[in-house]
Amino acid sequence: MPWSKDNAALVAAEPGSALTVESASNYTFAMPSGKYIDDLSVGETFETGGVTLTEGAIIDFALVHDPQPFHVNKVAAAESIFGGLIASGFQTIALTFRLFRDTGVLTGTNLGGHGMDEVRWLAPVYSGDTISVRVTVEAITPSRSKPDRGTVKFRYQTFNQNDVEVLNLVMHHVMACRS
Amino acid sequence: MPWSKDNAALVAAEPGSALTVESASNYTFAMPSGKYIDDLSVGETFETGGVTLTEGAIIDFALVHDPQPFHVNKVAAAESIFGGLIASGFQTIALTFRLFRDTGVLTGTNLGGHGMDEVRWLAPVYSGDTISVRVTVEAITPSRSKPDRGTVKFRYQTFNQNDVEVLNLVMHHVMACRS
Repeated sequence: MPWSKDNAALVAAEPGSALTVESASNYTFAMPSGKYIDDLSVGETFETGGVTLTEGAIIDFALVHDPQPFHVNKVAAAESIFGGLIASGFQTIALTFRLFRDTGVLTGTNLGGHGMDEVRWLAPVYSGDTISVRVTVEAITPSRSKPDRGTVKFRYQTFNQNDVEVLNLVMHHVMACRS
Repeated sequence: MPWSKDNAALVAAEPGSALTVESASNYTFAMPSGKYIDDLSVGETFETGGVTLTEGAIIDFALVHDPQPFHVNKVAAAESIFGGLIASGFQTIALTFRLFRDTGVLTGTNLGGHGMDEVRWLAPVYSGDTISVRVTVEAITPSRSKPDRGTVKFRYQTFNQNDVEVLNLVMHHVMACRS
């Protein structure tokens, strides 16, 4: 699969090129193409799979990105206002996106992101918790200057295994048009 | 340092406890205490150190959190609208926070976060770029229900080595009062 309509938005391989886009595509484009902006409608929702946040994953992430005691230190975390080790909010956001990415909705059609609004960490995510995400299309805005793309406003809601909402945010994606 | 006023907000060690808070504190509280909410004033700014985003760091982060082609695949990234490998926006946010954390302003006094607003990825962060951050206190709001804490609204602005602003966001921190 050195070149195909499905990944044309991002990849235009030269057939026979050495470090092949083909092998890269096998990794990043193993799934069918995602949804184009034309395929989405306001109010549509998507449910993701889940991921369990282990102690190890929480501490490894936080040692690099957010080394506060309640993210890296079980003893200090137990005595903190949280009462136990919790995931960095940045890790929860990144994994929330990863879970949505794994639905395939964005594959080859998500061109980037403008930003996020209304990001709220509503409840702590403790080690051992399992999170999953509901994503809702809230608005679709065609680009005024570039007819091949537009902005999609997605609402992300992340829940733990007890259906407690732990994160709520809006993300503004740049997505490709089908034409 | 099994117990001290400086980290009392988060750590209340039992002297002589086995897996010691002392050793943990040596790790996470190696710096002097950060600023309490009483120590901050609206308009005050802080400048951070910098960090260089290597290809390896970008790809390692993205393989777990954001495996889109322009974050993990140099060949595809070169053909994308970005023209080269760029960091995940979630990585830029997390490192932006890490840089501010390393100033020591938050050490032992930052109790958590409510969320973020107005997050904007203004320009791509390419592999090899070095980012640093300016943080400005925009508002200070004492808690109505808990007199020992309040909310600080910090504006984060992240720049690359050419002084191009690549990220702008507001983060709402919960911080301890001195009393």
